[in-house]
Amino acid sequence: MDGTHGWPDNVDQARMLRILRDEGERSRAQLGDATGLTGARATIEIDRLTARGLIEHGGPAVSRGGRRSSMVRISSGTRFLSIALGAHSMEVVVTDGELRPLARAAESTDLRRGPALVLGRALELAAKLLLDAGGDRFSGAGIGIPGPVDFRDGAPVAPPFLPGWHRFGVRELLATELCCPVLVDNDVNLLALGEKHAGVGKPFDTFLFVKIGAGIGAGLIVDGEVYRGADGSAGDIGHTAVSIGQDDGPDCVCGNTGCLEAYFGGAALSRDALAAVRAGRSAALAARLARSGTLTAHDVADAATHGDPVSVALVRDGGHRVGQVLATMVSFFNPGLIVIGGGLAGIGHSLLAEIRSVVYRASLPLASRALPIVLSELGTEATHLGAARMVSDHLLEVPGARSARR
Amino acid sequence: MDGTHGWPDNVDQARMLRILRDEGERSRAQLGDATGLTGARATIEIDRLTARGLIEHGGPAVSRGGRRSSMVRISSGTRFLSIALGAHSMEVVVTDGELRPLARAAESTDLRRGPALVLGRALELAAKLLLDAGGDRFSGAGIGIPGPVDFRDGAPVAPPFLPGWHRFGVRELLATELCCPVLVDNDVNLLALGEKHAGVGKPFDTFLFVKIGAGIGAGLIVDGEVYRGADGSAGDIGHTAVSIGQDDGPDCVCGNTGCLEAYFGGAALSRDALAAVRAGRSAALAARLARSGTLTAHDVADAATHGDPVSVALVRDGGHRVGQVLATMVSFFNPGLIVIGGGLAGIGHSLLAEIRSVVYRASLPLASRALPIVLSELGTEATHLGAARMVSDHLLEVPGARSARR
Repeated sequence: MDGTHGWPDNVDQARMLRILRDEGERSRAQLGDATGLTGARATIEIDRLTARGLIEHGGPAVSRGGRRSSMVRISSGTRFLSIALGAHSMEVVVTDGELRPLARAAESTDLRRGPALVLGRALELAAKLLLDAGGDRFSGAGIGIPGPVDFRDGAPVAPPFLPGWHRFGVRELLATELCCPVLVDNDVNLLALGEKHAGVGKPFDTFLFVKIGAGIGAGLIVDGEVYRGADGSAGDIGHTAVSIGQDDGPDCVCGNTGCLEAYFGGAALSRDALAAVRAGRSAALAARLARSGTLTAHDVADAATHGDPVSVALVRDGGHRVGQVLATMVSFFNPGLIVIGGGLAGIGHSLLAEIRSVVYRASLPLASRALPIVLSELGTEATHLGAARMVSDHLLEVPGARSARR
Repeated sequence: MDGTHGWPDNVDQARMLRILRDEGERSRAQLGDATGLTGARATIEIDRLTARGLIEHGGPAVSRGGRRSSMVRISSGTRFLSIALGAHSMEVVVTDGELRPLARAAESTDLRRGPALVLGRALELAAKLLLDAGGDRFSGAGIGIPGPVDFRDGAPVAPPFLPGWHRFGVRELLATELCCPVLVDNDVNLLALGEKHAGVGKPFDTFLFVKIGAGIGAGLIVDGEVYRGADGSAGDIGHTAVSIGQDDGPDCVCGNTGCLEAYFGGAALSRDALAAVRAGRSAALAARLARSGTLTAHDVADAATHGDPVSVALVRDGGHRVGQVLATMVSFFNPGLIVIGGGLAGIGHSLLAEIRSVVYRASLPLASRALPIVLSELGTEATHLGAARMVSDHLLEVPGARSARR
């Protein structure tokens, strides 16, 4: 690592590293061809990357007649760290330079214990996993946090129910301890980027990832990258009013009433399920409550798939409201794809069918006539792919290259 | 013009041309400094641009001690064409290479006469204005059309009330007649780009332009450029449902009910004003109706500024609904600025106050705590600036330069 955050010296080196990261080992000749450089120039850049330890050489490449070439790949000692924090769990993953997971650990936690304790434990796990993965240092780390994040500062901003995390310098603490570049983002942006890297979003330049879990949020991919907006808060759809024109609507954690999250999402489903049991409207939910003492969104999802009419109606109503909000976003943002993920995406096709039906009916035909709306296939793994990809993209940025086209 | 659409051969030439376009005449030395090139390399590129007739030399520059330099500028013969179509009017403007208007003509028209007649007349005006502006050919043309446009095809898509324009090859016709590159976009995108070029949006990379006129629409600027989305239809907010959760709401031209445009915008205001007169609720509006035989949105705006309570209430209600939709967009898109323009923006500060109050209350604090919401100062002139800038940006694109950073 030189003084700047960037790994490569120039855009040609950055393109080579991206190709090796995303497509794996290549011959020197292939790598030169892929970047459109002359053979001499490609040799110079490959030798520079080798000298700096960013790539390494494998065996001889298959001959293409005349030219002799050897294989090159991202240095096998490269390690990225991903930390995914949830309200009640954390998962830590160590990847190689091609962003493949090498070691992982998951455990339950409680973010209300505060950032120092939670991050301290994450660092312990990271140190252990780094050893397990045969590494000696991290090249970079990405961390996903539920709730709004000031991306530039690397700090959460007013996360619901987590006052101790407000403006806490997560990036600063981790960068100091890990001695490497660290980026902090909200978990939905990382899920979106993970889907771009290796999921259903891979071929799309512009798409929308929607997480439906305890909360509801969106990640926007524009031009292949996470779009964060002016303050890094883009993608907040959970607090869209879905009772506009009405005076009432359930109270929301944000202080307003009638927000999407106040109607749907984990807490809202629990609340509505309990109300149904108390009103004597669902024997299926009552039986589950008697068994476990609580009713979660997963109980509703499960009861819905087993045909409980009250649960089916809750899922349909929630899907309908999500669909109404997404219809608005489709007309406004015109994404090429919508990916639905998060814990409640497990409800599956009944939820998806309701969302699709509303979006296709209520959004601008030009924006939705060829719009796929699909479930995530990567699930939570997308968070780690997104975290590693985020910090890797950051390392591959060449200062000034972005503004050169203006 | 060479075989590609691009003017410059490389990104350095493109940067020089942008500087000269946006900042005017510069000395050779200043231009070299601004692009960060060595003196020898700058000289080569400047000489190439001169040889191709894209720039020309003025008098000697003020000495900076030692170095002698002459002034260079965009070739004074450069002419861009802008055509702004409205439902009932067209305006044609010819600009120079610095996008300054040199000649203009405006007349009333009726788009329902069909594209062949309307565009034929626009071409007549363009030919006359080109002579008036001392030009012999256009380097490029931009045209703004009210309603959805397929940007890639350069054709309107299902514009309301204008069946003859659906999928009509506007770009193809104009490019054939003008023998130059032509880009077609919806008028709101051009207004947004005009505000970026020379209006209140100039210092902002990411902002939202909202047009409130006969219809309501938005133009999104991302990373300094118009964001069009996957199908070129981004920015449609007029058909956002603002009666979600209610079964009724006024019918909209789009076929749904309860859209923002069905509540506010030119047609809705006329409708509501007439209803108020028929119900005997507004003497001020009744007097206006008796005078002119119709009631337009401008009558309502004018009566509101003169204190008619019914008109004031209509403007407030409209501003409230616009504010509700914008609050959602602010949380989702997190723009750095919102510019309000279009015919009804003339209602001015009572409308703006209502919009601000709702947006600041109902959107995510992180996204709106430092968000300016202002009226356009450029007015309709932004369309022409946007049209000329759009085609000029297109000419300054260097093939491959955009993807080089990936």
